[in-house]
Amino acid sequence: MDHASRDHGLNRMTELLTDEVETGEPVRQRIPVAVLGATGSVGQRFVQLLEDHPWFRLHEVVASERSAGKRYADAAQWRLETSMPSKASDLVVRSLGDELESGLIFSGLDSSVAGEAEDLYADRGAVVVSNSKNHRMDPDVPLLIPEINAEHLAAIDRQRGRRGSRGYIVTNPNCSTIGLAMAIAPLERLFGIDALHVTTMQAISGAGYAGVPSYAILDNVIPYISGEEGKIESEPLRILGKWSGGHFVDASFRISAQTNRVPTIDGHMMTIALSLRKKPEANLIDAVRRAIAEFSGEPQELALPSAPRRPLHLVDEADRPQPRLDRDRERGMSVSVGRIRPCPILDIRMVALVHNTIRGAAGAALLNAELLEARGLL
Amino acid sequence: MDHASRDHGLNRMTELLTDEVETGEPVRQRIPVAVLGATGSVGQRFVQLLEDHPWFRLHEVVASERSAGKRYADAAQWRLETSMPSKASDLVVRSLGDELESGLIFSGLDSSVAGEAEDLYADRGAVVVSNSKNHRMDPDVPLLIPEINAEHLAAIDRQRGRRGSRGYIVTNPNCSTIGLAMAIAPLERLFGIDALHVTTMQAISGAGYAGVPSYAILDNVIPYISGEEGKIESEPLRILGKWSGGHFVDASFRISAQTNRVPTIDGHMMTIALSLRKKPEANLIDAVRRAIAEFSGEPQELALPSAPRRPLHLVDEADRPQPRLDRDRERGMSVSVGRIRPCPILDIRMVALVHNTIRGAAGAALLNAELLEARGLL
Amino acid sequence: MDHASRDHGLNRMTELLTDEVETGEPVRQRIPVAVLGATGSVGQRFVQLLEDHPWFRLHEVVASERSAGKRYADAAQWRLETSMPSKASDLVVRSLGDELESGLIFSGLDSSVAGEAEDLYADRGAVVVSNSKNHRMDPDVPLLIPEINAEHLAAIDRQRGRRGSRGYIVTNPNCSTIGLAMAIAPLERLFGIDALHVTTMQAISGAGYAGVPSYAILDNVIPYISGEEGKIESEPLRILGKWSGGHFVDASFRISAQTNRVPTIDGHMMTIALSLRKKPEANLIDAVRRAIAEFSGEPQELALPSAPRRPLHLVDEADRPQPRLDRDRERGMSVSVGRIRPCPILDIRMVALVHNTIRGAAGAALLNAELLEARGLL
Amino acid sequence: MDHASRDHGLNRMTELLTDEVETGEPVRQRIPVAVLGATGSVGQRFVQLLEDHPWFRLHEVVASERSAGKRYADAAQWRLETSMPSKASDLVVRSLGDELESGLIFSGLDSSVAGEAEDLYADRGAVVVSNSKNHRMDPDVPLLIPEINAEHLAAIDRQRGRRGSRGYIVTNPNCSTIGLAMAIAPLERLFGIDALHVTTMQAISGAGYAGVPSYAILDNVIPYISGEEGKIESEPLRILGKWSGGHFVDASFRISAQTNRVPTIDGHMMTIALSLRKKPEANLIDAVRRAIAEFSGEPQELALPSAPRRPLHLVDEADRPQPRLDRDRERGMSVSVGRIRPCPILDIRMVALVHNTIRGAAGAALLNAELLEARGLL
Repeated sequence: MDHASRDHGLNRMTELLTDEVETGEPVRQRIPVAVLGATGSVGQRFVQLLEDHPWFRLHEVVASERSAGKRYADAAQWRLETSMPSKASDLVVRSLGDELESGLIFSGLDSSVAGEAEDLYADRGAVVVSNSKNHRMDPDVPLLIPEINAEHLAAIDRQRGRRGSRGYIVTNPNCSTIGLAMAIAPLERLFGIDALHVTTMQAISGAGYAGVPSYAILDNVIPYISGEEGKIESEPLRILGKWSGGHFVDASFRISAQTNRVPTIDGHMMTIALSLRKKPEANLIDAVRRAIAEFSGEPQELALPSAPRRPLHLVDEADRPQPRLDRDRERGMSVSVGRIRPCPILDIRMVALVHNTIRGAAGAALLNAELLEARGLL
Repeated sequence: MDHASRDHGLNRMTELLTDEVETGEPVRQRIPVAVLGATGSVGQRFVQLLEDHPWFRLHEVVASERSAGKRYADAAQWRLETSMPSKASDLVVRSLGDELESGLIFSGLDSSVAGEAEDLYADRGAVVVSNSKNHRMDPDVPLLIPEINAEHLAAIDRQRGRRGSRGYIVTNPNCSTIGLAMAIAPLERLFGIDALHVTTMQAISGAGYAGVPSYAILDNVIPYISGEEGKIESEPLRILGKWSGGHFVDASFRISAQTNRVPTIDGHMMTIALSLRKKPEANLIDAVRRAIAEFSGEPQELALPSAPRRPLHLVDEADRPQPRLDRDRERGMSVSVGRIRPCPILDIRMVALVHNTIRGAAGAALLNAELLEARGLL
Repeated sequence: MDHASRDHGLNRMTELLTDEVETGEPVRQRIPVAVLGATGSVGQRFVQLLEDHPWFRLHEVVASERSAGKRYADAAQWRLETSMPSKASDLVVRSLGDELESGLIFSGLDSSVAGEAEDLYADRGAVVVSNSKNHRMDPDVPLLIPEINAEHLAAIDRQRGRRGSRGYIVTNPNCSTIGLAMAIAPLERLFGIDALHVTTMQAISGAGYAGVPSYAILDNVIPYISGEEGKIESEPLRILGKWSGGHFVDASFRISAQTNRVPTIDGHMMTIALSLRKKPEANLIDAVRRAIAEFSGEPQELALPSAPRRPLHLVDEADRPQPRLDRDRERGMSVSVGRIRPCPILDIRMVALVHNTIRGAAGAALLNAELLEARGLL
Repeated sequence: MDHASRDHGLNRMTELLTDEVETGEPVRQRIPVAVLGATGSVGQRFVQLLEDHPWFRLHEVVASERSAGKRYADAAQWRLETSMPSKASDLVVRSLGDELESGLIFSGLDSSVAGEAEDLYADRGAVVVSNSKNHRMDPDVPLLIPEINAEHLAAIDRQRGRRGSRGYIVTNPNCSTIGLAMAIAPLERLFGIDALHVTTMQAISGAGYAGVPSYAILDNVIPYISGEEGKIESEPLRILGKWSGGHFVDASFRISAQTNRVPTIDGHMMTIALSLRKKPEANLIDAVRRAIAEFSGEPQELALPSAPRRPLHLVDEADRPQPRLDRDRERGMSVSVGRIRPCPILDIRMVALVHNTIRGAAGAALLNAELLEARGLL
């Protein structure tokens, strides 16, 4: 994969750039990118993950009118454990809707504004890689997990046609959905899933910085997250389905989701029970464990910069995975699966954990963009 | 129910007692009781709940050799929000195995010693009301929830026969089981349950004072509680079953339980999905809601002192029940049920909450003892 | 104190009222009261504490335009552990500024609107008992802790004169200040305080329901609370000062306050180190302990309904007071003081704890109003 | 500093070692080290920090009889966020007291056994770098913070003389003390400290894995840590004192410490108020800020592997430092200082934060050992 010679719509940008020359390495120019909603939770995570990214370079930060014109360091109340990247600090915040120089745009916008704004930039010719829910179920927008359904990128052609533009939108799933879909993808592939119960225990960061008041969640569990169960019951079917004959054909199993907010900071946990269509004759548990341990996909083959070495980590200890101990495996990009055991009612039970703001949000979008770049779609 | 004239094995004790004479009320003597394991978590809760109990009076506290001979105030490291009852403070701790004057004994013993000690006192003629797991599945020991299976008390006769003693043991279920069994009892009665998935989110007090290190659970979820899933998958079947022909006949549905520890102090939450054998023709959800709202049992009829007015509280808000807001309903003796809604796979989904150390432990045992007293079995 | 025969400005209201007649007691009519900001955190606590109050009866609830006209049950998102009082549920929310029938008004208003609104109602003739900060330092408004400075009520005359109205405002101090001022009041009285260092560890409820995002405080401490240190450094001087010659004369010692937010729900903790002006010759620690244990004031003499039996609880255990275990002493109306010991630099060190939303807010205001009633000032 | 040619007592070990040869770098052999108490909290942190250490190589793990003979992976219940280093997993645990091959020994032993065991190994000729409290105040044992009192290493000669051995013990201070001593060291140097009040808010990891039950600390603050205040009031005086004329001469100011446990996982916070002996004529606050920002010491000059670039981070935001956001600065080796402002009673107030298990424990010991190596004392 030769990134120096790629030839696509971003080339018009490369003359604007002067990347650092690293000693002894051939000079390469990184792709300038914009982040929409850059001052919010997901936006900050984008800015953090883009620091030192080998292929992408943060070039523009975009936020609401209120922040426009300020230095990013003044507009964003930075809340991550690492320091604000120094290169981001001095960027001047652009206003949502402004013309942007970047041809690749990450969107961490709130769903109240994401729908329209993402369409706008895609129509203007940009590639919009979105974490928002608005366009996830559009009939020609890939709902992408690169390890699972890279072939959904075929929908881009049709989307470009509809827009009459080189631009398009690609989305990543809801944070809990990503954990669930990845954990069960090898089982759907090998055995076919028939029915699935999932109960989630979701971290407070999933609701954004001020989403969950401490008075609501300390010493407490909230058995409800608005709209979440519907997403978890529908998105995995799209993800595990096919692009066929010019449209998405969903997988056909049934999901029952019950969602809860618990007092953890990062890391969505879920208990899963599921039945399979065809079972191996011999040891089912061993077959399931092997399927999970060996799961791999295109990001691993292509060695994309954000790809985990192993998308699924099979953990053996009886009391794992745990959010605090396992969420950061492979920089938060792996899903951990444990407690694989028989179910007295269905076939299999297990526990899965996903870092909701990395693999479940900004990291997912970044990996999506890397796949687009590797496939020559930027 | 005339408690002044009851005539049973405890009468030998009444001459020892001088109860406070409350102005204007006929003088009644309360039944002297002992608490085994009185310095532990469950034992402290017994001592707390017995303060000012109208029928029972704390007369003896029993603990391990190490505490024996000390004042209770010196032996117990009191950890409840209310002050140690002053009458308990001055009791001298007896050693486990000592002869006791009380004919009614509450056991909050650790399971490592409960089995033998409870048998010992029952064989000697005492009524042992236990919160420990050891004898729960014995073939002639009631696993009692007075609202559900008061008819299991019929097993006492057979147990007395086996022991050749007036004494016997009655047990209450595991803390999570109580919440689950109560929430589903009206559904089993009316419709019959076929299969049930439950995922628990259990408070740290369920493991005893030092059971869960803070380093293990802060900002974390632990998807494993030793032995818990087995109890939840078996105990409800005994509880919802019958005493018939001299032995227990279990209910016959299947349960799949997945248990988790979460950072809450008190209150076990659980998500439930279940299928029913026979469904009402009309609106199933309404029928289920009504069954839960109207559920009542013998403790309510008898107006037992610890009985909640309503054993099940149907909560309507979309995001309830919640441990911190709902665990203390009716002094912790009610189970709250909410989010009753259809299941895409089975018939019904709902959320239940039980105060694990009150209704799920010491309060359950107290209610059991009250039923025994009201039935003339003390 | 004969409440049946009191004769004051509220009498015009009594004909509107029909109170429940309690058997065997002389019929008394409770005073109708209004709560400003009734849907907020402090307002909800007022509504909760007024349920079953023997002297006061919740008659009107007042909130912002947005809630006006709705039933209280629909306007307020109730967040306390007990259920919303049924009598409050059906009250129709009045709009701030509306004419009110109640002559006694509790204000839990946000400081952005409290200043003007409280003046408005006082000018119209009502007695406004406020928890807001706006008028605390006014030259003729009592900053009242009934156990300490009941004589500050002398300022009311002058305030009424200024307003040309029967109405006036009385305030209670900041939540942390109340704990501090009460803990040191007996020392100031007996020995005189010279200098005092205090570091607070404040619960999240102090910032109101949505004041502290969980993402900000889980696994964290925030060493800053806006405006708090200034209040703690000035308010106690006013409280412990005198009303003399028609104005307040502050106490003259110096306070250095450092404030922190910690992940507790209720209960502000503080470590205190202080020096005294005159010391007892003999054992200083004993003298201080005695002074604290014996502290009492007018609420105790008058046996006001909300008065704790002992305003200060001296706790002896080395590791107490603790928020979760001690905040609810005497229904949250007592301040707990412990760890009284010498200081290597100053004279005395100790730890104090106050329930910030009861004794430190709504409960404080209620006690203030009870003192006003007992003094015949309503 | 040429580590290849160092000539000291460890040379006898080098023939046992085969280090990895890294391409293009001169082959260097890392020093084999042992960890005492390797299965405990501090021991695990040592094992973690030694992975990939450029100078030291984990060669032996030592624990109690109970673990001896097992693989480390089987003996230690690993509880850190990163995985157990694979090279550690296969080491066979040695028993405390066994002859060791390593000449450099890190001790994370519990104080109940540390005193004797550390003496034993030092007498046998090993350099023991200890995190335990037992020998901290010995008259010839350095209580070392390399940035502050590297000259205390002069005591080693005398200690070796006493032991009649090449071996000796060096200790690091208590976790809170390290944060405090580092934060005030530049002020003591420049202005001299006269008196100091400190209140700590300490993380639960400071008590070891099972030290603080979750039931004790959730929604709570514990205003007491056994023995902690005494250490904080004495150790800084030793650290900031001199080695002169063959013994330690303590600094002479007074410290008053009040310690609290709060529900945070890692990171000890403290509020500090202090008075200075001589003050700059001009702006005191600016002078203090500059002193802290510019503080540096021998580890920085020598660029020791574990040395932070800046030992003190001056943070400017009004609400910082905060444990979760700032404890990991420079891999947990920097102390953060903020809120520097005047004190109404003394001269200066500020807030400091130290990562208690890294800079405050294992990381401190590691830096001590690096200084010993750089000084040719191994």
